[in-house]
Amino acid sequence: MKFADRIARLGTETAFAVSAEAAAFAAQGNKVYPFHLGDMNIPTPANVMEAAAKAMRDGKTGYCPNAGIPKLREVLAADVGAARGLRYSPENVAIQPGGKPTIGKFFLALLNPGDEVLYPSPGYPIYESQIEFLGGVPKPYRYLEGERTFTIDLDALKRQITPRTRLLVLNDLQNPTGAECSTAEREALAELVLKHDLYVLCDEAYFDIRYDGESTSFVSLPGMVERCVILYTFSKKFAMTGWRLGYIIAPPDFVRPLQKIHQNLFISAGSVSQWAGLAALRNAAPDVERMRRTYDERRRFLIKRLRELGFALKVEPEGAFYIFLNVRHLSRNSYALAFDILEKAGVGVTPGIDFGENAEGYIRISYANSLSNIMEGLDRIEEYLKSR
Amino acid sequence: MKFADRIARLGTETAFAVSAEAAAFAAQGNKVYPFHLGDMNIPTPANVMEAAAKAMRDGKTGYCPNAGIPKLREVLAADVGAARGLRYSPENVAIQPGGKPTIGKFFLALLNPGDEVLYPSPGYPIYESQIEFLGGVPKPYRYLEGERTFTIDLDALKRQITPRTRLLVLNDLQNPTGAECSTAEREALAELVLKHDLYVLCDEAYFDIRYDGESTSFVSLPGMVERCVILYTFSKKFAMTGWRLGYIIAPPDFVRPLQKIHQNLFISAGSVSQWAGLAALRNAAPDVERMRRTYDERRRFLIKRLRELGFALKVEPEGAFYIFLNVRHLSRNSYALAFDILEKAGVGVTPGIDFGENAEGYIRISYANSLSNIMEGLDRIEEYLKSR
Repeated sequence: MKFADRIARLGTETAFAVSAEAAAFAAQGNKVYPFHLGDMNIPTPANVMEAAAKAMRDGKTGYCPNAGIPKLREVLAADVGAARGLRYSPENVAIQPGGKPTIGKFFLALLNPGDEVLYPSPGYPIYESQIEFLGGVPKPYRYLEGERTFTIDLDALKRQITPRTRLLVLNDLQNPTGAECSTAEREALAELVLKHDLYVLCDEAYFDIRYDGESTSFVSLPGMVERCVILYTFSKKFAMTGWRLGYIIAPPDFVRPLQKIHQNLFISAGSVSQWAGLAALRNAAPDVERMRRTYDERRRFLIKRLRELGFALKVEPEGAFYIFLNVRHLSRNSYALAFDILEKAGVGVTPGIDFGENAEGYIRISYANSLSNIMEGLDRIEEYLKSR
Repeated sequence: MKFADRIARLGTETAFAVSAEAAAFAAQGNKVYPFHLGDMNIPTPANVMEAAAKAMRDGKTGYCPNAGIPKLREVLAADVGAARGLRYSPENVAIQPGGKPTIGKFFLALLNPGDEVLYPSPGYPIYESQIEFLGGVPKPYRYLEGERTFTIDLDALKRQITPRTRLLVLNDLQNPTGAECSTAEREALAELVLKHDLYVLCDEAYFDIRYDGESTSFVSLPGMVERCVILYTFSKKFAMTGWRLGYIIAPPDFVRPLQKIHQNLFISAGSVSQWAGLAALRNAAPDVERMRRTYDERRRFLIKRLRELGFALKVEPEGAFYIFLNVRHLSRNSYALAFDILEKAGVGVTPGIDFGENAEGYIRISYANSLSNIMEGLDRIEEYLKSR
């Protein structure tokens, strides 16, 4: 078959290569410690599943409105507004089949071919892939490893802006570094957004998965609510990855075309998933707190153990469930190193290069894994390091 | 916000207008007979819901492979192959979050801006909307009302083909007419496909909802299996519209880029929905047959009653659950007529014009509604006709 040109622009060169190799390696009967995966090993909370079963029994298995069931939009508007010091109404909310599909729809709605998009590097590789797929021009802005956190290279970012720059992607508590903007960074970015008439995707997938303090949304800054589309997902917070449920919160004049995209291309998120999501918002707070403590226990263990193994882990991640580890003393080629660790230690890690050129010299370790798995995997890495 | 140019090309002018008006009319406290909707009033089979609940309890709530859970791909390959006289393997199958999202992905994968697409008119309005959204050139081919069925105007279709024509959409037992290709039509189309090097989307959403005889897939014709992408959905056959579950069956070299689109833009269809779908394939045949008989009973009643009301219903639909009704003796403006019927009779019908210019002078009546609702609604239409 002769494919559309956009297919050749889809996906970064290496992303998913370790995943594919790890799956093949496991299929040969090898034990693999999957520290390359972001899927938690925690089941969806029981009360959420009960609500899903009840929704089915009540016959809620048909189509639902494109933008989602009204009650879910209502509860989300109230909850998200309260956590961000803003007033949102259901007209601000559109339910989505997960977080990833929402990124594409943000670009579909706002990006013309040739428009430039600022996005984080290191960062979630899907931003770049989707920008290129839809004909945009990727403008990765750098995160630099500082003493206590990763910081945005604001001077470089300013120099990247041109008259064709239209969009900014911001991902606090970001994948892969876990870094969060400082107040000064947020204020500087908001100034640039206003000065250059940008629109912003605030990817807040990890807003509620943090180990100290409270999250601040970029959207709370003056003038930003009209220019920001918040992406959120039930996947991480409620251990609901397989339910494909997320949402955007945005100005109503953005929600309307998005709803039109849904009418024409998708219909809606699943009905049963939406009723499950409503139950999660109402009843799953204790489960969320239990998960947070579980992640934190793993995080503390990992930080301690990695330091014992000689890694200079300056930055302790503030949120999400990843450690972004400087491995320059081992290799300058994170891709080759990740394959070597997989083959020799049976541990899957994600090469830094998957998160952008600025991420070379790092690997990402996910702790969406059991503590015992993490302990064993780290023992394997220790042996690997000794045998090098 | 300033939107991307493609947003202005999204959606046909009138589609969904009656739906919106009917919803508003109902919200004012009016009873509306929703003959404009394609969502059946039948719950998902109980054994499918039980399987979904079991999948949850078994912890199958995490991510699953982009192309779907292996067992579901395996069962579908065997089933779909057997019904079409072909051998398919799991590598031919990619699970999708419904039928509608699959249409867009077919175009995303194969359509460059400026490429021409042949698609049915009257036809499902989403084809045209998605072609234009993605920068393609719509080339609607005509269905003409004959003595016993709607037939494709093959001579006109041939004249529409140019060197830029790349794709053909074929929708047997189609929405809105229920028409099915004759063997001669299929052979003529296959010849054109080979002659002009076209690829084909075989939208088989209604393949198993028919009232006489057996369905034949276009893909079974010589040389077509390499050029056809079959779209299927669990929505209609198993009353699973809200589960967002469908699939494509296609050559593996098409499945691979589609999987890549999924990796980058969607992740996958929902996990629980996929386990529900597997149960549907295994256990729901008696439910499917019961639904078919239910639809047939409604269909027969409607045909008889509409003829009593003076409609010249030459064509009895062979499949799906729609009657495409010639209303030229009432009005040449199906849009105005549909609004008039809604306001004066409280009955929602879909104007022909929603299905393309060639469909003016018709309205579509869906019988995805209870028989008592259909009876009452037809009484209202009778009164409406008398009062004109």
